[in-house]
Amino acid sequence: MTQTDLTQTELAAAPLHIIDLIRKKRDGGALDARETGFLASGAADGSIPLEQLSAWLMAAWLNGLSLDETRALTIAMRDSGVKFSPARLGKVAVDKHSTGGVGDKTSFLIAPLAAACGVAVPMISGRALGHTGGTLDKLESIPGLRTALTLEEFEAVLVKCGASIVSQTPALVPADRVLYALRDRTGTVESPGLICASILSKKLAAGLDALVLDVKTGSGAFLRKPEDSEYLAALMVATAEAAGTRTVALLTDMGQPLGHAAGNWIEIVESVELLRGQRPAESEDLRELSLILAGWMIHLGGQAATPEAGYARAEAAIADGSAMRAFFAMIEAQGGDLKVFDDPKGFHKPGATQVVAAWESGYISEMDTTALGWAVQRLGAGREKAGEPVDPHAGIEFHARRGAHIEKGQPFATLYATNASMLAEPIAFLKKAITFSQTPPPAVPLVSRIFTRKAAEEYLRNANR
Amino acid sequence: MTQTDLTQTELAAAPLHIIDLIRKKRDGGALDARETGFLASGAADGSIPLEQLSAWLMAAWLNGLSLDETRALTIAMRDSGVKFSPARLGKVAVDKHSTGGVGDKTSFLIAPLAAACGVAVPMISGRALGHTGGTLDKLESIPGLRTALTLEEFEAVLVKCGASIVSQTPALVPADRVLYALRDRTGTVESPGLICASILSKKLAAGLDALVLDVKTGSGAFLRKPEDSEYLAALMVATAEAAGTRTVALLTDMGQPLGHAAGNWIEIVESVELLRGQRPAESEDLRELSLILAGWMIHLGGQAATPEAGYARAEAAIADGSAMRAFFAMIEAQGGDLKVFDDPKGFHKPGATQVVAAWESGYISEMDTTALGWAVQRLGAGREKAGEPVDPHAGIEFHARRGAHIEKGQPFATLYATNASMLAEPIAFLKKAITFSQTPPPAVPLVSRIFTRKAAEEYLRNANR
Repeated sequence: MTQTDLTQTELAAAPLHIIDLIRKKRDGGALDARETGFLASGAADGSIPLEQLSAWLMAAWLNGLSLDETRALTIAMRDSGVKFSPARLGKVAVDKHSTGGVGDKTSFLIAPLAAACGVAVPMISGRALGHTGGTLDKLESIPGLRTALTLEEFEAVLVKCGASIVSQTPALVPADRVLYALRDRTGTVESPGLICASILSKKLAAGLDALVLDVKTGSGAFLRKPEDSEYLAALMVATAEAAGTRTVALLTDMGQPLGHAAGNWIEIVESVELLRGQRPAESEDLRELSLILAGWMIHLGGQAATPEAGYARAEAAIADGSAMRAFFAMIEAQGGDLKVFDDPKGFHKPGATQVVAAWESGYISEMDTTALGWAVQRLGAGREKAGEPVDPHAGIEFHARRGAHIEKGQPFATLYATNASMLAEPIAFLKKAITFSQTPPPAVPLVSRIFTRKAAEEYLRNANR
Repeated sequence: MTQTDLTQTELAAAPLHIIDLIRKKRDGGALDARETGFLASGAADGSIPLEQLSAWLMAAWLNGLSLDETRALTIAMRDSGVKFSPARLGKVAVDKHSTGGVGDKTSFLIAPLAAACGVAVPMISGRALGHTGGTLDKLESIPGLRTALTLEEFEAVLVKCGASIVSQTPALVPADRVLYALRDRTGTVESPGLICASILSKKLAAGLDALVLDVKTGSGAFLRKPEDSEYLAALMVATAEAAGTRTVALLTDMGQPLGHAAGNWIEIVESVELLRGQRPAESEDLRELSLILAGWMIHLGGQAATPEAGYARAEAAIADGSAMRAFFAMIEAQGGDLKVFDDPKGFHKPGATQVVAAWESGYISEMDTTALGWAVQRLGAGREKAGEPVDPHAGIEFHARRGAHIEKGQPFATLYATNASMLAEPIAFLKKAITFSQTPPPAVPLVSRIFTRKAAEEYLRNANR
């Protein structure tokens, strides 16, 4: 006899059973706050078996989550473990989150930029998985650097440096730790409601005052359809605002790798070049996006009247060296050895290097950035499954960006692999991923849309999902 | 990089990954024979974790399985373990399978009836679960009787008696053992394709030459909508025929319990009464259906030119006592103590007995047979979860059938419980389950439709699922 045979009054008093929540979701219903609380705590403490959670996840993936259900699940997951309170930092706490991409290293720029401008940046980051890189893996390519800090150590680094980038502790949002690992293995990752709850539960558990979301669009985005990225952006803004955190989402281009490097250490190198005030042409998109995102963080953090004024403050923090100093201070406070930055390229010792020359002449009109991300992963820089090691030295440097004209035989990219036997497959991926044209491709805006709370709520009213 | 990015040639050579099969099913694709083989063997040997299997199952539940996919999955599951070969029996091997009901005890009649008429009946049966009873639990109410035979013991009983009813061995169709238990816990039971593959994989692994399917319709059927039962019947016939087994499906009424007894030992008693040639009016539907099903088995087993001729042969096997002898021979060969049949009612010793009088006067117009099945379960005769013990003496005897007129205060049913505290809930279920009317309800045919191969294939062509 299932719970649907009971009256509403009996139902409120009855204990919850996961099988009923699976059936409810399977049949198109929406879980309420009590039910999402049961699900999140059961995931966190292991009282709901993985196979039942994954059946619920697949039903949620296929039938979707309602707005109220998404908010309820987000809050239930946030409350599934201990929480961080930035109150003692004495500053407004603002973080940025990106939905993930290839060569996306803005965290290494915006954390020190915002910190240098007086905003606290308590950043809890993730690891490489599939075609996307991981902030923690990149940062850990710095010898000695630790990201597995306790919440006390995290707070101490924040007090000292204004920014800290750490891994999720087991005690923080344990429901997400379980559900995220499960979604990865069960084909239930790309669901707006589940993505929203996963991202925001972690961000809200860090006690943020404000949040800037970088939602990727284009061929390397997690969600391939632009309308899916738009929906996710609006959903996250509305959900986070409903939970009391000022939030803005920017839709940004992931139609090509961001900047010229995609890997681990080589991304740190590119970031430090920019923090040092260098402006290589092939890093210009990375610099611009980092300043825009930092500008929003500085604005929401109360240190600039507008995002544009925040951008200007961030630019000044590069010019005066304060952002570079903030980044180095953070690295040192987390145990990193700064000596490698005396000769960053000298520290780079890949097992095998291969320059790939252009195999056609023409404009680079399209890049399948997801395929490029897989090429980076197969070189050894990423991981196919959680828990696998990554090679800090592997990756790709692109010598030509989308829109550029290249002659057959010119160097197009340099591949760095753990060993020479790992080069063939990534080269094949690379060659499949690039489309050449005889006329210049249309320009793609770096930021295509911005969702504030009002814009997000209006979008969702009309979205009809 | 998912497999869908590879060419067909690369795909054939590439190793399979369960995550790709989950995504394929999630996105509405259909698994081919190689993929279902991977899934079934991975379920059987534990190399695919339960949480990945359950995500695939939920995707299959929500998106359905195609006809080809259902056939491929059935065959892959059949081939996931050892198989039984009836070749050495020197007879045509025919079995019957029912989709489950309340009071459904035809197996105890048709197995000896067909055996007495020269057909081998290698029957691998199941246990009570939820509102439906289990052939093995009923049979095991006979003291000493074993159903967990080895395949060698099974063959020996078949050679000696022509029929044997046993439990699934762990080595036979291990994929189904895993998937069935998982479906029960993950809300993925009621899927035509999955039900078909589960039922037929077991039947086909028994090496049957022919199969008669008894697909229930009405209020006690596993699938509540008649069109779902029809679809399942046609699907199973087409699938089994495609796998080389002559198959017919009968859609039969489960709008009331079959016969007058629902429980364990009391169902054996009712069956033996009929085999002994008695014809109590309240068992007439059970007798008629058993003869029809046995008639088809005898016909498909080559021992009668038509199902009607088979029916006549079966009726004669009751009259001449050969069916009764075949049943007792089988019981004895499986270790059962035949002495209990000297006084079957005397052996019945329930912990508590309660006669429920009619609480209204009128015609019994409708019976919620699923609710009646739950009443039987709650009395102790069934189980809510796999592995729970059952009480051989618990159950219900109905003194009035659907369509009968009853006066308030007349005995309607006798309930047998493990103890008196277990009576209240089943009585409440019973009272909710019965609808009275002041005019006689329309008659319901015992067999509403018959699907031979041709009829099944035509139905599926027009079914548009």
